[in-house]
Amino acid sequence: MSKLNVVPFVSVDRMMKLVHAIGVERFLVELAATIEADFRRWPSFDKTPRIAAHSVEGVIELMPTSDGTLYGFKYVNGHPGNTGEGLQTVTAFGLLSDVATGYPVLLSEMTILTALRTAATSAVAAKYLAPRNAACMAIIGNGAQSEFQALAFKALLGIERVRLFDIDTTATAKCAANLRARGFTVTTCESSAVAVEGAQIITTATADKQYATILSDNMIGAGVHINAVGGDCPGKTELHRDILVRSDIFVEYPPQTRVEGEIQQLAGNHPVQELWQVIAGSAEGRRDDRQITLFDSVGFAIEDFSALRYVQQQILHTGAYDELDLIADPDDPRDLFGMLMRSSPLAAGGMAAAAT
Amino acid sequence: MSKLNVVPFVSVDRMMKLVHAIGVERFLVELAATIEADFRRWPSFDKTPRIAAHSVEGVIELMPTSDGTLYGFKYVNGHPGNTGEGLQTVTAFGLLSDVATGYPVLLSEMTILTALRTAATSAVAAKYLAPRNAACMAIIGNGAQSEFQALAFKALLGIERVRLFDIDTTATAKCAANLRARGFTVTTCESSAVAVEGAQIITTATADKQYATILSDNMIGAGVHINAVGGDCPGKTELHRDILVRSDIFVEYPPQTRVEGEIQQLAGNHPVQELWQVIAGSAEGRRDDRQITLFDSVGFAIEDFSALRYVQQQILHTGAYDELDLIADPDDPRDLFGMLMRSSPLAAGGMAAAAT
Repeated sequence: MSKLNVVPFVSVDRMMKLVHAIGVERFLVELAATIEADFRRWPSFDKTPRIAAHSVEGVIELMPTSDGTLYGFKYVNGHPGNTGEGLQTVTAFGLLSDVATGYPVLLSEMTILTALRTAATSAVAAKYLAPRNAACMAIIGNGAQSEFQALAFKALLGIERVRLFDIDTTATAKCAANLRARGFTVTTCESSAVAVEGAQIITTATADKQYATILSDNMIGAGVHINAVGGDCPGKTELHRDILVRSDIFVEYPPQTRVEGEIQQLAGNHPVQELWQVIAGSAEGRRDDRQITLFDSVGFAIEDFSALRYVQQQILHTGAYDELDLIADPDDPRDLFGMLMRSSPLAAGGMAAAAT
Repeated sequence: MSKLNVVPFVSVDRMMKLVHAIGVERFLVELAATIEADFRRWPSFDKTPRIAAHSVEGVIELMPTSDGTLYGFKYVNGHPGNTGEGLQTVTAFGLLSDVATGYPVLLSEMTILTALRTAATSAVAAKYLAPRNAACMAIIGNGAQSEFQALAFKALLGIERVRLFDIDTTATAKCAANLRARGFTVTTCESSAVAVEGAQIITTATADKQYATILSDNMIGAGVHINAVGGDCPGKTELHRDILVRSDIFVEYPPQTRVEGEIQQLAGNHPVQELWQVIAGSAEGRRDDRQITLFDSVGFAIEDFSALRYVQQQILHTGAYDELDLIADPDDPRDLFGMLMRSSPLAAGGMAAAAT
């Protein structure tokens, strides 16, 4: 039987097993290296802002890109009210396909993978932007993304001390327990202002779909790196505008970030630096130890492409995937109708013909 | 165990079984009714031209839409060179999700389903545009779409005589055999000019990705309906421009059709009529028996939405689907990391916890 109909599929269960087989920190390091490699060849990708369908409750987005050989896209939602109903704020899945034929080559869960790639991207940015010898990170917003951020910063930058704050103390308790189990020194804090004390890196990862002020200007001292993860759609920001004006701002893809990121609060021509240029060596990252750097992260399709590409490399030689009967595969590609008719239980020899 | 992680999945095999359980002609009639109902409420949909990634070999497209309650999108490719390698020109899959939560509710193969919906849409248009008492249809281009077109026109308009032409005579022989087996009176022809003789409806469904002239002006007599299915991306057309100028042109979504359809050959302000308005009764279809009507079909996201919605209705009460482990479902939605860690084979009671 031809296998043209089969698309390799990585289920949630398969993804969790893959992460454990590799080890979560090694997975983050290797994923970060893949993202970094793809950022370095940024000009070779087709780039477009994601296609968003907004509703009162949230947003559903498609994020496509291609490097000319592989095409990838992610389906992802963002629904802040979901947790109140026992659902997740963000769920996702993604696909890779062969540009030359259009045939899918990988379908994968991406809820877990998105959490990993978002954290890995933040850590890659911090490698170039955070102050040298940073040892302590504040994490404001202790939901589903928080532990992944901490672990990526531990794996890539050696951060082992975190200061946590969330308006929901049970979220902080959950995050603290998870991170202590992974060897972190954790301080839980009663406010954002307390959390940022003594932190060289400040990560914000809250989920409200509204303008919020998680960080106000007086909390931000000279020399810190701000990793702003939560502001990622129109009307959703986390930082006071005054902080942005004092910062050197680094972004993924300006046409998308100007609409979705913290910089939607600024004029459309406010200077920003593209992260890929820093990674490629054509622009400067951190200049001095007084500078405030801000990674205004909204998530870009190339990061998902990198993540799918990494997963594909990992599973293809291990065979640790399921086979999905997703693509109709007639013996004669022009005879789709004949394939359908021969599969009829009423056709003479129908099922036998369909099984060849 | 919670079922939040599970997305109903209709594989190729499941789709073929569903078509046979319903019967292909009844499936086409019911699908056409669903498409017609959705065209009638056209203004209630979010509409955007599809997002296309073009390459030398073909195109990969994402086609999203939403009615505010359900969100749907289709992934579809178009690669004319594929058949030379034993692959299909068009393959597709699609997804429906719940706008209120962003959670997917159906993943389905759409290679077969796209062939069915394209044919059903053509037949719906012809109901309003073809001359009364049309009895004979020419089909130029006898590839994977041709039999579906014939069957939809039989099921909805009673067309039982077809005249076939393809530059590949083996494609014509395949199509003729398939249609004779379904009760059609088939005439195979040696040219497009011969095929259109005596036909009241002319369907063009060729696959070349280039400007072609499948029909020239002298072939088109007064009163015919042209169902132009094959021209569906920039640079790909089938009809001579002079035919367009003599025709009343009906389209799905003008911003997309002006880029992709036959009318890309005309000025951007050339008058066209939106099909949904004809169906909704706010615009006129066929006026008289001398008029040349042209349905410049390129395929629009709402038709795929209708098709997915129809399939969802059919499978949910029969349970004729597979369950796909696509969505990570932590007990505490903020604790995705904890779910991942508890699934570790090394975690104390890890697998037991993961199985709850």
